[in-house]
Amino acid sequence: MNRTAFFIATGSELINFKVNQYAPLFSEKLKDHGIHLKGEITVGDDLADIKKALIFALKNYGLIISCGGLGPTFDDLTRRAFSEVLGIKLVRSKKIASFLKRKYRLAALPPNMTDQRLVMKGAELFQNDNGTAFGQAVSAKGRTIILLPGPRNEWEPMWGKSVKKFLAGKFRSKKTGSERFKIADMKEMEVQKILNPLMERHKNAGYTVLAGPNICEFSFRTAEKKQALKIKKEIQRALREKIYGYGTETLEGNLGKALRKRGKTLAAAESCTGGLLSSLITDVPGSSDYFKGGVNAYSNAAKMEVLGVKKATLKKSGSVSVECASEMAERARTLFKTDYAVSVTGIAGPGGGTPQKPVGLVYFGLASEGGTLVFKKNFRGGRKFIKNCSANTALFLALKLIKCGEGVRRKA
Amino acid sequence: MNRTAFFIATGSELINFKVNQYAPLFSEKLKDHGIHLKGEITVGDDLADIKKALIFALKNYGLIISCGGLGPTFDDLTRRAFSEVLGIKLVRSKKIASFLKRKYRLAALPPNMTDQRLVMKGAELFQNDNGTAFGQAVSAKGRTIILLPGPRNEWEPMWGKSVKKFLAGKFRSKKTGSERFKIADMKEMEVQKILNPLMERHKNAGYTVLAGPNICEFSFRTAEKKQALKIKKEIQRALREKIYGYGTETLEGNLGKALRKRGKTLAAAESCTGGLLSSLITDVPGSSDYFKGGVNAYSNAAKMEVLGVKKATLKKSGSVSVECASEMAERARTLFKTDYAVSVTGIAGPGGGTPQKPVGLVYFGLASEGGTLVFKKNFRGGRKFIKNCSANTALFLALKLIKCGEGVRRKA
Repeated sequence: MNRTAFFIATGSELINFKVNQYAPLFSEKLKDHGIHLKGEITVGDDLADIKKALIFALKNYGLIISCGGLGPTFDDLTRRAFSEVLGIKLVRSKKIASFLKRKYRLAALPPNMTDQRLVMKGAELFQNDNGTAFGQAVSAKGRTIILLPGPRNEWEPMWGKSVKKFLAGKFRSKKTGSERFKIADMKEMEVQKILNPLMERHKNAGYTVLAGPNICEFSFRTAEKKQALKIKKEIQRALREKIYGYGTETLEGNLGKALRKRGKTLAAAESCTGGLLSSLITDVPGSSDYFKGGVNAYSNAAKMEVLGVKKATLKKSGSVSVECASEMAERARTLFKTDYAVSVTGIAGPGGGTPQKPVGLVYFGLASEGGTLVFKKNFRGGRKFIKNCSANTALFLALKLIKCGEGVRRKA
Repeated sequence: MNRTAFFIATGSELINFKVNQYAPLFSEKLKDHGIHLKGEITVGDDLADIKKALIFALKNYGLIISCGGLGPTFDDLTRRAFSEVLGIKLVRSKKIASFLKRKYRLAALPPNMTDQRLVMKGAELFQNDNGTAFGQAVSAKGRTIILLPGPRNEWEPMWGKSVKKFLAGKFRSKKTGSERFKIADMKEMEVQKILNPLMERHKNAGYTVLAGPNICEFSFRTAEKKQALKIKKEIQRALREKIYGYGTETLEGNLGKALRKRGKTLAAAESCTGGLLSSLITDVPGSSDYFKGGVNAYSNAAKMEVLGVKKATLKKSGSVSVECASEMAERARTLFKTDYAVSVTGIAGPGGGTPQKPVGLVYFGLASEGGTLVFKKNFRGGRKFIKNCSANTALFLALKLIKCGEGVRRKA
């Protein structure tokens, strides 16, 4: 059985100005049926382009799902394109006509609804509880073809209510195992160096690495539940505490959970991240429960006068130093009266670097009752990338230390 | 000349969990060259799928652009797939090798960079200022094919610097007039209500509205330069000071320019934006020249103890009020010793709303020598959207007032 799927999105707006969010949504849903979404194509409201896309999909993949172009307007061309390519006549469905008449309390269908009755002959129909376009499915040319309406609030309930059942009948489900690891403080290359040889020993598993600013995601998938558990354990042993979460978890979300669980509070003192670290922390709903605030000390004057870093420290060590990072964290902890405070000070560039303190050099401080730890990192990239690397690293270090225990040693 | 284009995005993450934002971005850029983006296909990091996608595109469209899969890792397969389908050998580019060695100060390329030299024989190369993967372009089978790296901060500067020039040479551009307006403090609907009737009077012009968090982009395009000037003037008259910039200008960039031009400095006091406003301001290279810092006062204690808002104010009016916004801005201006200070305080949600002060209610303050102005807005949406609306609005109000003159009245 061909367990590959391909997605066709139709709608000129998806080419011109609207972001297309279909693929990840359908990919996730199809995994439940052991079906692998191999790709998606987006075309405008253009009969020839829709037909070309369908011909391509039919040639290569087992299940074809399309979204959009089932509305009653002139540019809704999906039914016609599919019927012409598949060689299946469009017929009028009495079932749909009477459903629409009942739903909208009409004696007869108005002109703008008459096309909504059209279905491919022999199609299985999926009722639409939130719109006028029914979904439909046919088998042709050895493929399964499903047409769904475009708006998410129409196709998603339809999926849960009827498409799922239809697929379960067609594609007897296989048990599959998968996991997505969220990794921080490692480069994509370092992750691959460790995990590629590990994954090569598991011939049947597929995997992906996705790199972000000093964070990574590693996902794998295999047909066997047992093998999946084994792989998961091996990866955990290989990456250890660099794994900060799973699935859709985030650094800021998990940091929030760790603080909430322990009933602790946090403050921030930022220089080169300029507010980004605090902004990430406050992206989490309810973060005001544990995050009390921060100071963005973007000038030496602000570091001294608002945050209270000693003039002597700045004079002797400079603002990008172990000493300054340490004092920034300690001062923020005192000012905001929190259990923990995290600090970031570095050079985001493109200007401001020197041979001794190059662009990308960043110090992190974490102050707690037990003392203050300072870390040093070097990042490479543009200004925004270094800002993001720095903010993610600050979140990760705070999360790790808060989880590891409160009795933090004095200076690292 | 075949002026149709097709886009190929590669990367398993775009199928599995990451939203694909390419099509609208490229559609817009191609319009400058009179090229019509007809569709896009996304495939995972799978050699066979990438090849199928390319074969499909070659059959149907004149210009093929791909993004992604040029990185140095095992799952970066684009070069190989294209070389195999097009029948063009991959060769090692000395130019790229010496560029990378110079850039990263290396005596020899490390193993993880050796693939970055590979280019299709005879390809035109596009230098990457923000990464290791060069772009490349070839002509084959009567088509023009361009390969670009995936990250937007890599391909977008590359586009402006070299791809544009390459396309202008290949596709002799029709003389067209166009403009992109950057608009703030208006909803997409409000922009359309004003500009749709205006544009309907210009039959030959096409236009697009792109909505963001309390900001909008409006682009139009026409075949005649003269008509374009006329349309531009009409739009300027219709939207007036809501237009904050043109082309690729940003709110934070233009705010920086306005401050720099006047030799003035800025500080921020944030509550519901939690650092996002300061982070946007400091995304601009050189912003430390005029931005001195800010306080993220995420709790009432921080508002009082760090920022110095009066207890009586919080008790009487609450933290989301004209009075609090006003004091926050004034206190930040004093603390950071700046010419201006901007404040934001509101309810980002999802919790914390009341019938009197619902989620999305936000106050903005701008303090200057001449006094303090306060503005009130209501936004609708999720937490991150409200944060972004608030930060953009704060930037816009600050920009507008700083440009309008220093003699700011006392309280609005």
